[in-house]
Amino acid sequence: MTFTERLEAYASLLEQHLGNWLAPARLGDVAPRLLEAMRYAAVGGGKRFRPFLVIESAGLFGVKVEQALNTAAALECVHCYSLIHDDLPAMDNDDLRRGRPTVHKAFDEATAILAGDALLTLAFEILAAPDTHPNPAVRAGLSLHLARASGAAGMAGGQMLDLEAPGKRLDEAGIRKLQRMKTGALITFGCVAGAILGETSEANLAALRAYGDALGAAFQLADDLLDAEGDVAVVGKATGKDQEAGKGTLVSLLGAETARKKLQELKVEALSALAPFKPRDEILAAAAEFVVGRKF
Amino acid sequence: MTFTERLEAYASLLEQHLGNWLAPARLGDVAPRLLEAMRYAAVGGGKRFRPFLVIESAGLFGVKVEQALNTAAALECVHCYSLIHDDLPAMDNDDLRRGRPTVHKAFDEATAILAGDALLTLAFEILAAPDTHPNPAVRAGLSLHLARASGAAGMAGGQMLDLEAPGKRLDEAGIRKLQRMKTGALITFGCVAGAILGETSEANLAALRAYGDALGAAFQLADDLLDAEGDVAVVGKATGKDQEAGKGTLVSLLGAETARKKLQELKVEALSALAPFKPRDEILAAAAEFVVGRKF
Repeated sequence: MTFTERLEAYASLLEQHLGNWLAPARLGDVAPRLLEAMRYAAVGGGKRFRPFLVIESAGLFGVKVEQALNTAAALECVHCYSLIHDDLPAMDNDDLRRGRPTVHKAFDEATAILAGDALLTLAFEILAAPDTHPNPAVRAGLSLHLARASGAAGMAGGQMLDLEAPGKRLDEAGIRKLQRMKTGALITFGCVAGAILGETSEANLAALRAYGDALGAAFQLADDLLDAEGDVAVVGKATGKDQEAGKGTLVSLLGAETARKKLQELKVEALSALAPFKPRDEILAAAAEFVVGRKF
Repeated sequence: MTFTERLEAYASLLEQHLGNWLAPARLGDVAPRLLEAMRYAAVGGGKRFRPFLVIESAGLFGVKVEQALNTAAALECVHCYSLIHDDLPAMDNDDLRRGRPTVHKAFDEATAILAGDALLTLAFEILAAPDTHPNPAVRAGLSLHLARASGAAGMAGGQMLDLEAPGKRLDEAGIRKLQRMKTGALITFGCVAGAILGETSEANLAALRAYGDALGAAFQLADDLLDAEGDVAVVGKATGKDQEAGKGTLVSLLGAETARKKLQELKVEALSALAPFKPRDEILAAAAEFVVGRKF
């Protein structure tokens, strides 16, 4: 299978797996409207790139796809919750996401807040579930790392910095820190989670963290380039929003040409980090190429 | 020590313990405004009744107070996050909480949403931390139970039902279900968490669950009586809101007199559930008396 075929195959598996979790049979007696909003946000679309990273990283250590799916689904729940809350009127105030109305537009604000809360909570229910891994130390380790990546020192903290950014004229270091927290932390978790699931060495975990850090930075830089230059029909969400909101990005600070050069450097950094896993690093290497070349 | 002295002593310990968690030294490089809002919501007040339940229930099985504090703090984080989000304009739209401006009034809506998100996430970071319990199966078990109690089939689901309640004319069973999810689930978790920390038998866990279920129902019924009859200066938040919002409560459905009789029945139920723990059940029995007689 090529990289794209694997990405699509795993997205399809993940879709089904998340759908099973988001069913009354699994969750119990749930408020129907809340469940509908959670499914609207989490089932039915998206590249599922973060879950892909979990599955592929875990695969380096012989972890079967089925054994990685719960962790992959938990990470996707956190990602989807963050999109719901970031889109809220009090936050980025977006009406469109993946070409569809955002959750608070399709439902209402209160339901959107609760659906986000419940998806975040579900992520930790999934990680703690016995079938996520037979070793409870692995399950607790996954929870600890995901919480750190998602919380005040990670994604939520990054969103706070992002909201404060317009008045602040951040320098390159400030923008990098914001992006590392807001976007990078979850991508790095996806790679680190594979190492935790695989119960591998600290050295291998550190290598995957370095790969994830470079990949996450590249992902955000590619996103900024798309926002500055992309077409709304291709991207599937509003573009030009960063500039409109007065938010500094590396693209506006350094110019598109320098940003594209940095993007290539990050790719080299990501590929070098994969050295310990040669020759089984092919798919993760292709993922780095994909991120750098992405047009979505 | 009397019940009240213990409640206050544990509240003070919990206050300090949560304060330590909500410090840059512990959480790492956090957005200052976000941390300030989290501390505003979680440090500085409250009876800390849920943490008290964790500590006392765990104490039945010889678990030291220090060993229960992380779990108690995690539960309080979830409780505090739920208050922040419930108070938001899109939800219950409250300006006052514990006699102070609510978080979105003291800060702003976006910060309040993120502070709630980050406190919820912190709860799972705390539970997964190695010093919460030496046995990782206990840590994973705590996470699983807390997630179920807080998520779509628990507290968040209950809040969704509560938002939908005004148009629905719920019957007694409907109101009980709503309250069991919205308020009861976290109180029951507090009691069950003690059994998990104590690595005790299924029978003891079930007894504490039964105690928690009755206590949680009594807690909510007492709250409804206060809302219907209480004085804002004593209660510390707006009263009469349920009726104003057209929300049915057991008080409006059954009348205050019947509600008070039910409250006594729930107390008897809670006390009976404690039978296996005699004579060490004194403090938890006093907690049931406290809940039934509460005026806050």
